[in-house]
Amino acid sequence: MDARRFDARVYARRLAATRAATVKAGLGGLVITPGYDLRYLIGSRADTFERLTALVLPASGEPTVVVPRLELASLQESAVAELGLRVRDWVDGDNPYRLVTEALGGSPTATAVTDSIPALHLLPLTIMLGVLPVLATNVLRELRMVKEEAEIDALRKAGAAIDRVHARVPELLAPGRTEADVAADIAEAIVAEGHSEVAFVIVGSGPHGADPHHRCSDRALREGDIVVVDIGGTYGPGYHSDCTRTYSIGEPDSDVAQQYSILQRAQRAAFDAVRPGVTAEQVDAAARDVLDQAGLADYFVHRTGHGIGLCVHEEPYIVAGNHLPLAAGMAFSIEPGIYFPGRWGARIEDVVIVTEDGAVSVNNRPRELFVVRA
Amino acid sequence: MDARRFDARVYARRLAATRAATVKAGLGGLVITPGYDLRYLIGSRADTFERLTALVLPASGEPTVVVPRLELASLQESAVAELGLRVRDWVDGDNPYRLVTEALGGSPTATAVTDSIPALHLLPLTIMLGVLPVLATNVLRELRMVKEEAEIDALRKAGAAIDRVHARVPELLAPGRTEADVAADIAEAIVAEGHSEVAFVIVGSGPHGADPHHRCSDRALREGDIVVVDIGGTYGPGYHSDCTRTYSIGEPDSDVAQQYSILQRAQRAAFDAVRPGVTAEQVDAAARDVLDQAGLADYFVHRTGHGIGLCVHEEPYIVAGNHLPLAAGMAFSIEPGIYFPGRWGARIEDVVIVTEDGAVSVNNRPRELFVVRA
Repeated sequence: MDARRFDARVYARRLAATRAATVKAGLGGLVITPGYDLRYLIGSRADTFERLTALVLPASGEPTVVVPRLELASLQESAVAELGLRVRDWVDGDNPYRLVTEALGGSPTATAVTDSIPALHLLPLTIMLGVLPVLATNVLRELRMVKEEAEIDALRKAGAAIDRVHARVPELLAPGRTEADVAADIAEAIVAEGHSEVAFVIVGSGPHGADPHHRCSDRALREGDIVVVDIGGTYGPGYHSDCTRTYSIGEPDSDVAQQYSILQRAQRAAFDAVRPGVTAEQVDAAARDVLDQAGLADYFVHRTGHGIGLCVHEEPYIVAGNHLPLAAGMAFSIEPGIYFPGRWGARIEDVVIVTEDGAVSVNNRPRELFVVRA
Repeated sequence: MDARRFDARVYARRLAATRAATVKAGLGGLVITPGYDLRYLIGSRADTFERLTALVLPASGEPTVVVPRLELASLQESAVAELGLRVRDWVDGDNPYRLVTEALGGSPTATAVTDSIPALHLLPLTIMLGVLPVLATNVLRELRMVKEEAEIDALRKAGAAIDRVHARVPELLAPGRTEADVAADIAEAIVAEGHSEVAFVIVGSGPHGADPHHRCSDRALREGDIVVVDIGGTYGPGYHSDCTRTYSIGEPDSDVAQQYSILQRAQRAAFDAVRPGVTAEQVDAAARDVLDQAGLADYFVHRTGHGIGLCVHEEPYIVAGNHLPLAAGMAFSIEPGIYFPGRWGARIEDVVIVTEDGAVSVNNRPRELFVVRA
């Protein structure tokens, strides 16, 4: 077995469950192009773009992989051969959208597509089908949202790996170094600590920490900076790590320390709220309420978290309005933050997994504001 | 100016030219989500996925950027502020597809979308518009395909950077090292030599070289291996390098050397065929004819090349059936290869730019089969 995918039996189970969900949803079939859904279903890491590769899963009938002949060999890294899936290869000049339609068994009334399929393929496919597809998310959501043991194991290992990177961050945060310097070292450490790829590195120092999606810049770190470090990579069969810690270069001002301690309570409150049956929005509210009581709610400008797995952002989203009841096996981030534009920001983020009676965190570095002393 | 984008005047010109092309195509407007088209038009490196960010360019009326409030700060890395574009931000609970439709000026009959917009956004947008969009490629193709001086400069610098990486490859190819070991060193060198990001690293040794899209594996290099090394990164304002050289660990067999020499002639023939007015398929045929005359055409299983710029694969595609006449300023790869399944493969790839009377190559490392001696 390639460590970058699971045993073929895992994918066989997933394909069977997906077919059952397709039938239950009243759909004629699914069309899955390269991306996390394809990796979920057959362990393929394909990332082809302009030539169509697609797994076609009709509600009844044989699954087919439509693939450019050029990509046939790469397809062997997936579980396609072990699963005995039918493969229809094509060359420049063929119409791959016709092959997809044929593999769906003619003209199904309702076809669902993976949410990452680009317009380049979706528009000609829609014209060939004669009807606008729907998103396959409704079919795949339940399956992908509740992680199996092997997935939880991968998320735990990814979490431990990113914890080891955070353990190395303080020594990188010297005044005078730029955010980009620090980010380059972190990227190297992400791979060195066992990830197969770097997913993202955010180093937001001083005022940059007030932008939740700042990446990094040529700004040099200064004594007194608060620095948000939000990092992640992909691990093993493609599962993500994602962990934020906030660092202070030198002792923080007392008001910063005090506001940070409230953020830390908010993050803890959200974690404590997690158990099966509680809704996603209740977890969001648990964090938000703590900040609200301290008059800080206006500075918490994003949702509390996002699901994580093969995709770094996936369901369940931990956000107001999401009435989804949590279930054991769901994995998501808990990452409240406070942002003071032009001044500083802070965020604390762990990936947690819902258990039968609560939650466990795959990230376990101390959550206090870490003071880096020169 | 941020070195990762051009001066705002470059984008102002592009927006004006795009509007003219939109009107000429009889379209009501364009919707451009994060990706190469957005980077081309406003210099944005945004890569948001599940929350819609979109540049809306109505044929008449004001351009608008629809953006999640969370991303407002990141948007400042683009030229949006200098261009004075209207910004409509949204928060969870708003309907961003309605904002896009409003920015288009109601219900235009024909809207074009960037070819990378994912189904996640395209399907709800289509429902909101009430009509299936078309691809914006037809509007943007001419503009993006013919590179301006600043783009050519970026492609040349990217080419020189990847040449410096290839210069370091022979010392990495020691028997006993795995393809993955070599690929990791190359990835580091790609960044060290001035790229901002690694785009791809292919190290295909022995039989793996016979798979044009093999990436790398744990296979250890052996004396006698032929090794295909196809590598690239992004440079400066996002332009790509992409260069393949083939290496031999120890002296190659005479039949390998002889077949490689024909491949080298094929690659040269394609280069020599390039000048304004020649069609893309004529360039493809120039390489293919040389291989055909030597009985090797069946082993050349892909097209001769692809355009390159902000996207590593873009128009013009150098392929049979593409009657597009080349024009000065077009940039594309010339990369014939020969592949003997289970045995070995070879490919030679340069990125070339069409000039007024021929072409120049941005890659200038020797194209011979490079023999690595222990």
